[in-house]
Amino acid sequence: MQLDFSKLDGLLPAVIQDAQSGRVLMVGFMNDEAFRRTVETGYATFYSRSRNKLWMKGESSGHRLVVKEISTDCDNDTVLVKVEALGPGVCHEGYESCFVRKLDGKEWKINEARAYDPNAVYGN
Amino acid sequence: MQLDFSKLDGLLPAVIQDAQSGRVLMVGFMNDEAFRRTVETGYATFYSRSRNKLWMKGESSGHRLVVKEISTDCDNDTVLVKVEALGPGVCHEGYESCFVRKLDGKEWKINEARAYDPNAVYGN
Repeated sequence: MQLDFSKLDGLLPAVIQDAQSGRVLMVGFMNDEAFRRTVETGYATFYSRSRNKLWMKGESSGHRLVVKEISTDCDNDTVLVKVEALGPGVCHEGYESCFVRKLDGKEWKINEARAYDPNAVYGN
Repeated sequence: MQLDFSKLDGLLPAVIQDAQSGRVLMVGFMNDEAFRRTVETGYATFYSRSRNKLWMKGESSGHRLVVKEISTDCDNDTVLVKVEALGPGVCHEGYESCFVRKLDGKEWKINEARAYDPNAVYGN
């Protein structure tokens, strides 16, 4: 069974979930090569739609995502990657997860503290 | 803050996670109207790329997804919806989750039993 990369012009969504806590940490996109590298290296690797290139998460920050389990859905067009996240957080804004804005009525609100100082990791 | 529907031609991925167990149940796509209906009705509603129309999950099976919490990520281009899933499973193949195929070496393998008989729910 092959993954179906055809529905989004060669990409599929990859949901990254903390293998221990179950928290969804981020969603990225993988093309065929990013998926292959993820499997071969054991570190989650994505295709950046904005930069048009492959990037291994953590290549600059050191906050790599160690693959623990990969599953796909009934249409073979999405993958779920359970990981051990190295470092305090995956979000470039300093949070543990990229999903920190919760809908509260009609507003999105952040109700948690940063896990690290993004300026210290990524610079300005 | 508005969600960014521009990156996938008016759609964004919606990760559906069981609010109790933390299991990722499915990934669908929402357009602006599907998201608005999800918020207004309290039931997860998607845009079907294959049928080109809105569909409320469970409209035929009764297996609706009751919204418990909605969050978005740092790019505002993905939503995470925590739900209470009504019925035994969300997958039209009869499983609790759509993510039942796990990568085992080079093969995808299913290692869990169906939660219900899909023929009894969806017919043939």
